[in-house]
Amino acid sequence: MSSPGSSTLAETVAAGSPIAQAFELIAPKLELVEQELQDGFRSPIRTIQEVADHVLEGGGKRLRPTLLLLVAKMLGYEGRQDVVFGALVEFIHTASLIHDDIIDDSAVRRGRPSINYKWGNHLSVLIGDYLYLHAIRMGLEVGDLSIVQMLCAATIDLTEGEILGLQNNGRSDLTTDEYFDLVGRKTAALFGASARVPAMLVGLEASRQQKLWDYGYKLGIAFQIVDDLLDFTSNEAMLGKPVLADLKDGKVTLPVILALPRANDAERRKIESVLRTGTFDEAPAEEIQRIVAHYDAIEETRAIARRFADGCKECLAEFTPSPAREALEFAADFVLEREK
Amino acid sequence: MSSPGSSTLAETVAAGSPIAQAFELIAPKLELVEQELQDGFRSPIRTIQEVADHVLEGGGKRLRPTLLLLVAKMLGYEGRQDVVFGALVEFIHTASLIHDDIIDDSAVRRGRPSINYKWGNHLSVLIGDYLYLHAIRMGLEVGDLSIVQMLCAATIDLTEGEILGLQNNGRSDLTTDEYFDLVGRKTAALFGASARVPAMLVGLEASRQQKLWDYGYKLGIAFQIVDDLLDFTSNEAMLGKPVLADLKDGKVTLPVILALPRANDAERRKIESVLRTGTFDEAPAEEIQRIVAHYDAIEETRAIARRFADGCKECLAEFTPSPAREALEFAADFVLEREK
Repeated sequence: MSSPGSSTLAETVAAGSPIAQAFELIAPKLELVEQELQDGFRSPIRTIQEVADHVLEGGGKRLRPTLLLLVAKMLGYEGRQDVVFGALVEFIHTASLIHDDIIDDSAVRRGRPSINYKWGNHLSVLIGDYLYLHAIRMGLEVGDLSIVQMLCAATIDLTEGEILGLQNNGRSDLTTDEYFDLVGRKTAALFGASARVPAMLVGLEASRQQKLWDYGYKLGIAFQIVDDLLDFTSNEAMLGKPVLADLKDGKVTLPVILALPRANDAERRKIESVLRTGTFDEAPAEEIQRIVAHYDAIEETRAIARRFADGCKECLAEFTPSPAREALEFAADFVLEREK
Repeated sequence: MSSPGSSTLAETVAAGSPIAQAFELIAPKLELVEQELQDGFRSPIRTIQEVADHVLEGGGKRLRPTLLLLVAKMLGYEGRQDVVFGALVEFIHTASLIHDDIIDDSAVRRGRPSINYKWGNHLSVLIGDYLYLHAIRMGLEVGDLSIVQMLCAATIDLTEGEILGLQNNGRSDLTTDEYFDLVGRKTAALFGASARVPAMLVGLEASRQQKLWDYGYKLGIAFQIVDDLLDFTSNEAMLGKPVLADLKDGKVTLPVILALPRANDAERRKIESVLRTGTFDEAPAEEIQRIVAHYDAIEETRAIARRFADGCKECLAEFTPSPAREALEFAADFVLEREK
C-alpha cells in the first residue's frame, strides 16, 4: 500500500536479521490494520467513499501503527485491540494531513494531487472532521476510556501545535525552546501516544507507561527534525515537493534557527526576505541552502536529531531484550536515515 | 451573551407565565454553561484565546444547551453534568459553524465578521478541530462512555450531512427524501442528541430515551426548514446575511423543491440559472422570490415545518406535565415563529 519510492520501516531491514523477524511477526497485524483502514473509511455517502479510495491508494509509511504494534509485541500483548488503535492513530494522522494541506494550500501530498486540490477546501475540511470523529468512535467502541482520553489529548496537542505553527509563521526570532514546544505538540505527542497505547492495554505500571511515551515522543521529535532537515538537503524528486518549501511558507525550523544568529547582516536579510515574501526573488534557494550549510547548521541539526534518537533508545533499556525491542531501536535509525 | 437582535428562547416568553417560571429555573444553569464555555475555551496559546474571545462575544441563541437543560429539569435531574454536556453540544455546534464558514466562504456570521474572514481559512480549520476535540475531551472527563458515543455519532451525522450538502450542491432534481436525509443529519441529529443526554443521565428506559431523541430530532427538522424558509422570506437586516444566499450558494431547499415541478419552463430555467451560475444575472432575486411564493411553496413549506413542530410536541405527551414540559412545547412554537 505504500506509494512509489516511499519505503516502510520493514522494507529497509536486512533480510534474515532478528529485526526482520520482528517485522515478520507483526506483518499479519499490519495487514489487519490496513483492512481496518479500508473498512473504517467505508461510507454509503458517495463522496466520502471517493475520497477514501484516493487517500487509501496513496498509502503511507504507516509508521505510527508500526510502532504501536512493535511495542504491543514487545510487551507480549495477545489481544486484537492493538489493530484497532493502530488504525485509529493512522486515521488521526491522516485527518491532520488533510487539514494541513488546507493550511499549506499544498497541491501535492505523497507525490499525488492532494485532496483539497482535487476536491476543494470545503470537502477537505469535512473529510478531515469525519476522520477525526470516526477515529474517536473506533476508540469508544473498544470501550477503554483512559486510552481514548490519552489519544484525544494527543490529538488536541497536535491541533495546538499546528495553531502555534501559524502563530509563529514568518518569525525569524523563533527560539529553540519555542521550536521544540511546537514540534512536541505537532508531531511527537501522537508518536508518544502510539507507543503508550499497548502499555495501557496490558496494564503496565505508570512509570513504564511513561518510558514508552518518552520513547515515542523522542522518536517523534527526531522524526520531525529530520523532516525539517530534508527541506534543506533533499530534492523535489525525492520529497515529492519543492525544496525549501517550508521556508517559503514562513516555517522557521531548526537549521534556520541555528544559522540565523551566525549569519552576517546581508545573509540574514536574505533568509528573512524568503520568510517575509514567500519568494526567492531576493535570494535564490541555492544561496539560502549554501548559507545554512556554511554555518554548520545542517550538521548540527542532524546531531540534535541523533541525540533524540539515542535518547529514545535509552527509554527501552529496562524492557527485556527481544526482536521487537531491537526493531524499536532500529526505528530510531530508520527515522534518522530516511531520505523522504 | 446574545448578539444584538438575536432573541434567546427565554426572552420571548411572556413574563409571569408557567413557561417563564421554567426558564427562571434553568437560568442559573444556563449561566453555568456560559461559564463553562468561557473556561473551556481558554488556552495558553494566544491565537486560540483571541479567537475564543471573538466567538464567545458573538454569543448565540444557546438553543441546544437550553433544550438539554429543560429536558433535565423536566426529568428532575439534580446533578451538574447537564451543564457540562450543555457546553459540550454548544461547542460542537460552534465548531460546525466555524467549519461551515469555510465551506460557504462566508464573510459574516451572526452579524459579525466570520472567523475565516478575520483570521483566514487555515486557522479556522484548526480552531474548529480544537473545539470538536475539546468537546469530546469534556465528555470523556465526565466518564459516561455511552453518552459520549451518542454525541460522537451525532457529530459524525452532522459532518456527513455537510458532506451530502456539498455532494448535492446545485442539484435541481433533489428529492424531498434526500432533503430530509440531509437536514436530519446536518441539524436534527445534534438536537436529538441534546434532548436525549439528560434521559441517559437519569437512566430512563430505552423507549422514553427514544421519545426524547425524537422530540429533539423533529424540533431540529422544523428549525432547519424555518432556516431555509427565512432565506426566501426575510431580509438582510434581519438575517445578517443577504436574502437567497442559500440558493445562490447552490443549496436546494424545501421551498425550491416544492416550487420547481410546478413552475413553467421559463421559470424553472431562471431558478436553475441561479443554482448554476451563483448569480442573479438571468433572474433578479425578487423574481425568484415571486415565483416560489406564487406556487404556494412558502406556505406549504411553513405547513410542513408546523407538522414537525406539532410532532415534536406529541413526543412529550407521556411525560408528566410541568413548567419545563410546557417550555419544551413552547420551544416548538419559538422555532416556527423565529424571524432570524
